[in-house]
Amino acid sequence: MEDAKHKVARAALDELPGRGIIGLGSGSTANLFVEELGARVRAGLAIVGVPTSESTRALATRAGIPLLDDEGPWEIDVNVDGADEVSAALDLIKGGGAAHAREKIVNFAAKRNVVIVDASKLSTRLGERWAVPVEVLPFAHGTTCAHLARLGEPRLRVRPEGPVRTDAGNLIYDVAAGPIDDPGRLDRALRAIPGVVETGLFVGRADVVLVAEKAGVRRLVRGG
Amino acid sequence: MEDAKHKVARAALDELPGRGIIGLGSGSTANLFVEELGARVRAGLAIVGVPTSESTRALATRAGIPLLDDEGPWEIDVNVDGADEVSAALDLIKGGGAAHAREKIVNFAAKRNVVIVDASKLSTRLGERWAVPVEVLPFAHGTTCAHLARLGEPRLRVRPEGPVRTDAGNLIYDVAAGPIDDPGRLDRALRAIPGVVETGLFVGRADVVLVAEKAGVRRLVRGG
Repeated sequence: MEDAKHKVARAALDELPGRGIIGLGSGSTANLFVEELGARVRAGLAIVGVPTSESTRALATRAGIPLLDDEGPWEIDVNVDGADEVSAALDLIKGGGAAHAREKIVNFAAKRNVVIVDASKLSTRLGERWAVPVEVLPFAHGTTCAHLARLGEPRLRVRPEGPVRTDAGNLIYDVAAGPIDDPGRLDRALRAIPGVVETGLFVGRADVVLVAEKAGVRRLVRGG
Repeated sequence: MEDAKHKVARAALDELPGRGIIGLGSGSTANLFVEELGARVRAGLAIVGVPTSESTRALATRAGIPLLDDEGPWEIDVNVDGADEVSAALDLIKGGGAAHAREKIVNFAAKRNVVIVDASKLSTRLGERWAVPVEVLPFAHGTTCAHLARLGEPRLRVRPEGPVRTDAGNLIYDVAAGPIDDPGRLDRALRAIPGVVETGLFVGRADVVLVAEKAGVRRLVRGG
């Protein structure tokens, strides 16, 4: 599996322009991509990066990738990120690493989005394998949870040391709502709840999905 | 004008149940209501409050009003808050005090919403008098601003000491988009932008609006 992840991370390099601004995703597969990209930068590739989390920022800095500031606006040429689940329509669930708010901002700012996963992330409909991570304001999160419970089964994400906090200091509820027939509609319903900062549903936001399989890398193209 | 604001703050007391949970708004008119309510509590009224900002929490505590914790969920009987603009349809623009995310959470958690304003806040269509305050994550706010610019004219809210921060640490863009024909549609379009935490549009969320006028207090009822 590790070997497959390395293969798909390297395959993503072929999706990049010769120079430009690259979005840098978060998570274990995206981390491998950042390391591969760092090697190319050290060999002379003229790109700059926009990291989607503090941990990716640290990793990219160690790898020698020059980074733009956090403020934007940026004109991102290609964004490369992982996903927790990819449907047959190439819609995504993200947010297992609690970085999906920044990841979605960078995704929407990119001309082209490349998603790298292993074959275990594929499903027919979203929600078959994963709950939808929803970032919420800490204020009144019990009230926000009560609203979420009308759309699925929310569970506050907790680690032994306490509730998980995002880089922005917010909480995560994982909302089991699958299988999801209409992810766009669920996304809008979740966003309509006061206290919701961002959802982990990425609908129509992947242009290319590279899938690591035993036999090699499969390349899926949206609408293709 | 101060006298009119006092009058409408006192009139809101008549909208309260004899006991229960009361949402406590933020802003100058809501502050007067909190002070009036404190006097009633000290005289024996059996209510508890849910404050919508840190400044309202401090004021309510000084006024002797017992408060519920921030976490919720709460069953709020009546929420009393101000507004920056009230349309003929009794839709609202709020957020001049940067507290609209918490105000909206409390508003949605209340069985009944009472809004107290003076006559200068009335307009025919929203946006005639006020821009729409939008709370955004600090990360990539320049990118979020570029998205907002497709829906209006965004301006980062700044004070001499620097950009305004909400209680949650986020930024405010005031988006001039008036007059607004369909505030519900604008609200959904703003909420669809990654990085947007909350908007100051309150559509269909005022049950009663009390308006301070020279001659007294006018009582407007939604659908009435």
